[in-house]
Amino acid sequence: MTLSHVRIVGSGLIGTSIGLGLALKGVGVTMRDSDSRAQGLAEDLIKSPSDLPVDLVILATPIGALKSVIEGEFEANPKAAFIDIGSVKFKVKVEVSTSSLPSSRFLPTHPMAGREVGGAESARADLFQGRPWIVDAQGVDSDVLEKASELIELLGGHKIDLDSSEHDKAVALVSHLPQLVSSLLAKQLTGGEERWLDLAGAGLRDTTRIAGSDAKLWREIVTANSQALTPLLKALQRDLNKLIDSLEDENSVADLINEGQKGRTRIPGKHGGKAREYTFLPIVIEDKPGQLAALFEECAQASVNVEDLTIEHSPGQFTGLITLALSESDAIKLSDHLKSNGWSVHAPKK
Amino acid sequence: MTLSHVRIVGSGLIGTSIGLGLALKGVGVTMRDSDSRAQGLAEDLIKSPSDLPVDLVILATPIGALKSVIEGEFEANPKAAFIDIGSVKFKVKVEVSTSSLPSSRFLPTHPMAGREVGGAESARADLFQGRPWIVDAQGVDSDVLEKASELIELLGGHKIDLDSSEHDKAVALVSHLPQLVSSLLAKQLTGGEERWLDLAGAGLRDTTRIAGSDAKLWREIVTANSQALTPLLKALQRDLNKLIDSLEDENSVADLINEGQKGRTRIPGKHGGKAREYTFLPIVIEDKPGQLAALFEECAQASVNVEDLTIEHSPGQFTGLITLALSESDAIKLSDHLKSNGWSVHAPKK
Repeated sequence: MTLSHVRIVGSGLIGTSIGLGLALKGVGVTMRDSDSRAQGLAEDLIKSPSDLPVDLVILATPIGALKSVIEGEFEANPKAAFIDIGSVKFKVKVEVSTSSLPSSRFLPTHPMAGREVGGAESARADLFQGRPWIVDAQGVDSDVLEKASELIELLGGHKIDLDSSEHDKAVALVSHLPQLVSSLLAKQLTGGEERWLDLAGAGLRDTTRIAGSDAKLWREIVTANSQALTPLLKALQRDLNKLIDSLEDENSVADLINEGQKGRTRIPGKHGGKAREYTFLPIVIEDKPGQLAALFEECAQASVNVEDLTIEHSPGQFTGLITLALSESDAIKLSDHLKSNGWSVHAPKK
Repeated sequence: MTLSHVRIVGSGLIGTSIGLGLALKGVGVTMRDSDSRAQGLAEDLIKSPSDLPVDLVILATPIGALKSVIEGEFEANPKAAFIDIGSVKFKVKVEVSTSSLPSSRFLPTHPMAGREVGGAESARADLFQGRPWIVDAQGVDSDVLEKASELIELLGGHKIDLDSSEHDKAVALVSHLPQLVSSLLAKQLTGGEERWLDLAGAGLRDTTRIAGSDAKLWREIVTANSQALTPLLKALQRDLNKLIDSLEDENSVADLINEGQKGRTRIPGKHGGKAREYTFLPIVIEDKPGQLAALFEECAQASVNVEDLTIEHSPGQFTGLITLALSESDAIKLSDHLKSNGWSVHAPKK
């Protein structure tokens, strides 16, 4: 381990979560924040002091506050590596290029992790586990990249190299557009009767969950990335206009739902594979301990690879339904194997 | 108990879930479907036959198929009570009024429960637990209302009286609008680079989850409820247009996020909802064949009952995260058992 003392400037959700994760791994952490309450809470949560020189400074402030901290941090820690964690990368690179911090000492990064709640109090050490962590290593010193790579590895993140301007387009689509759409939808709820809202189900809850996000954070992200967002919002506008014009036409509505399904299946599942590539095999089992183990023992005997599975089971119900996701050939192989051993296997579905 | 034999016409998600729930309570259930595969799976899951006369017929087909089943069902079961479970009520009332089934023998109902996955294979007996179940009892015979009320109570639903036209406005806002918005958003994903989608997080997954819904079902619901949906979509259109025009203005963007937060907080919490109280146990496993079987073998050895599970796995990662849902005591028992056998178990979460 080379990281011994990491200084995190900004004790919000991301900064504090990084601190928590590093402290767990025995790395010394100093937390800073212009808000003494946030800094105090973060320090209290993390408790991993160090007297060693700072080897990595993490700029975890809002983008708008970067300018005001960079100069002082670089002066105090001239040998340290620097990274940021901002949601928009091109604008951050511009900010750094006009500061005294050399671009070669600064790695723009973006951990693709977050919660709809913010602040040090929402921080969690495992926030980055298994999540992509984007870096733009072009022109950056190798020791800076090494320290950042170690950080990402310690926190369980998955490093991905991506050019900053491509990054900004990608997050506009997969993160910023969903945020704005969720807010637009949730805003419509301000107009309904209160008793109507009593009928809300999981669909409304899920689609509006991120509408609970912090306005201060998002007004900055959206305006900083307006260039990449504009064409996406205009495409959405065209589709909405078309929907309104053809709301009574079953085929047009079905086309939209089908296109939505198509888009939805592009979101990767396990192994980056697409859910639609799997064949789903439903198996009715008795609801008693040992049935799942017995089923997976059969899977091992049949030498098939289970990619995913769901269990449908209600408390008190006497049967459970296991749906296994497999390749098509494995589904056929397993179905035959299970049937010949007396399992209640139903027809596979694509 | 007065309900002894319920006939369910339509073995989709809702029909089969009703059947499962009734069978648990000892009520005889006959499942029917024009698709013999769906009917066979529903019968296999439910197994609660009855030779008694049918006292309640549940029309659980798509709205478009109602006409074709009502006449035959009424002729075969002239003394039975009839209800439907359709998502739009005014149009259903019109359909019944032009059939030979007297309006006084038919109660329009709508259980506000569903999943983005359909079909008998996705059914669960507890689908209606704590969920609103709307009825429009105006002009309906008291014995019909009594049977329906008993049904709703048996399934754990929460009966709400609502006039059909107000129902249609309410569901347009809390159910149909979110569906269309989710599809509109997910459709935009068809335009992105594939590697951008690798960066998707929980926000995108949640906002587009219901975009996976069935096009056949939704084209019917949307067109049947276009009158209530149109003003909502136009309000959304105005807000989207305004956003596009002021994307670089931090205050306007913050206003939208704040309005969205306001709308979001109008969704009631879990009151009346009977959330399943599981404890979630995260386990990091190596991503190789046989690991799941080995894990479930441990579960069997520890004699714990796994209620549900999810598999999280990121592209290129060599480990996977399995989260098991168990009762609190089983979670503690299993956690101890797994740890003593060298598994990488993390702290359970409620």
